Amino acid sequence: MTQPLRLHYAPDNASLIVRLTLEELGVPYETLLVDRSVAAHRSEAYRAINPAGKIPALETPDGPVFETAAILLWLCDTYKGLAPATDAPDRAGFVSWLFYLSNTVHSNLRMTFYPDQYIAAAHQSALRAGARDNLKTALSLLDNLAARDFTWLNALTPSALDLYLAAMLRWMALYPKGDTNWFSLADWPHLAQITAKLDQRLSTAALCAAEGMAPNPFTAPKPPTPPEGSAL
Amino acid sequence: MTQPLRLHYAPDNASLIVRLTLEELGVPYETLLVDRSVAAHRSEAYRAINPAGKIPALETPDGPVFETAAILLWLCDTYKGLAPATDAPDRAGFVSWLFYLSNTVHSNLRMTFYPDQYIAAAHQSALRAGARDNLKTALSLLDNLAARDFTWLNALTPSALDLYLAAMLRWMALYPKGDTNWFSLADWPHLAQITAKLDQRLSTAALCAAEGMAPNPFTAPKPPTPPEGSAL
Repeated sequence: MTQPLRLHYAPDNASLIVRLTLEELGVPYETLLVDRSVAAHRSEAYRAINPAGKIPALETPDGPVFETAAILLWLCDTYKGLAPATDAPDRAGFVSWLFYLSNTVHSNLRMTFYPDQYIAAAHQSALRAGARDNLKTALSLLDNLAARDFTWLNALTPSALDLYLAAMLRWMALYPKGDTNWFSLADWPHLAQITAKLDQRLSTAALCAAEGMAPNPFTAPKPPTPPEGSAL
Repeated sequence: MTQPLRLHYAPDNASLIVRLTLEELGVPYETLLVDRSVAAHRSEAYRAINPAGKIPALETPDGPVFETAAILLWLCDTYKGLAPATDAPDRAGFVSWLFYLSNTVHSNLRMTFYPDQYIAAAHQSALRAGARDNLKTALSLLDNLAARDFTWLNALTPSALDLYLAAMLRWMALYPKGDTNWFSLADWPHLAQITAKLDQRLSTAALCAAEGMAPNPFTAPKPPTPPEGSAL
C-alpha cells in the first residue's frame, strides 16, 4: 500500500486551498502542522521538502510538490478533476488564469501581508497601497471572467481556480487585521457568487472542522480559532 | 489546414521565451509585433487576446493563452516536449519550479524593471533593492538545483525551465540600463552552464536573427538592435 499524500499546512494559510482540492477530489491525505510560531517553515527539515520555505508543500509518491498553484495543477492532472485535461480546448484559458492567480493576485497579496519581505520598513505602507491598486485591477478582470461563459470559473461546481480565488478573497477581507477597509466582496458580485457556492460544499465543512473556522468562511470570513498553530 | 499559432511579441520581451520554446519544439508559428512605443499591449484590441495587457500572448486553435509560463506549459503539454508528461514522476518537481520561476523570479524581476507599477516614485529605488535581495535568494536555490541530478534543469538539452530562466538571467545582466551591477552571472556557475549550452542551440540563432540580438545572447548579453519595435 502506498503512502498517502501528506500535506504540510498551517491554519488559514495557502495550504487550505490544497486541502479543499484534496477534499473535492476525494483523495486520501494526511496533514502535518507547520508551526509558524517557531518559524518551522524556515527550518532545514522543511526546506528539504520545499526549498523556498513557504507553506504549503505536499509530499507525494513522486517526491514533494510545492507552490500552491503547482500543487493544484499536479493534483488536478493526477486525479483527473477540477481542471480541463491537457488535451481539452479549455486548457488554454485555464492555465492562463491559473498562472495569473499565482503570479499576479497571490503575488501582490503577499506584498500586502508581508511587505517586510520586499522593502524596508519606511516604505511598507506605500507598497501595500500600490499592491492593493493592482489587486483591484485583477479583481475587475476576474469578475468580468466570472460573469462570462467560461466553464472553469463560477460554474455550478468549483474548479481549482474557484478554490484558489475564494481563499484569497477570504484573506483580503481578514488580513492584515484592522487594515482591510480597501476591500469589499460586494464590489465583485460574480466573485461573491463563487464564495456563496463554495460555502455550501462538504469540502468547506471539512476545512472549517480541521482549521477552526466558523461556518461560511468565504462569504462571511472570521478569523479562525486554530486548534493548533497560528493563522498568519 | 488550421491556422498556425500566432505569437504576439516585442523584441527582448518575455515573448522571446515562447519563441525559443516554439523553435525547440519545431512547431510552425507566425509572429505579430506588439508596438510598445504606442503601448499597443494596453490597447482594447490586444486586451481582447490578453486581458492582463502583458506580452506575450499566443493565439491558438483553442483560443488565446497568456502569461509566459502558462504558454510554456501549454506548448509542452500539447506538443509533448521540453517538460515531463503529466504522468511522469518528474512532473511534481517540474511544475513546482515552473511556478516558482513565474511567481517569484519573474515577479520580483518585474518589480526591478517596472517599480512604478507597484509603488509611488519616492519608494521605487527601495523596492528595487528589496526585490534584488529576493532574486539573489532565488538564484541561490536555483543554482543548487542546477547542480543536482534533476533532469529538467541544466541537462544536455534544454527544458522549458532552462529557456525561461536563461532569458531572465539575460535581462538581469542588461536591464534597467546602467543599473545592473548587483548581478554577475559568474556568481552562479551552474546557471552559467545553462546559458552556455543555450547559446549553442539553433533556437537561439533563430531568436537572434528575428529579434536583432548579437551572438551569445545568454552568456554575453548585449542590448538588441531591434529590427522593429522597442526592447524595454
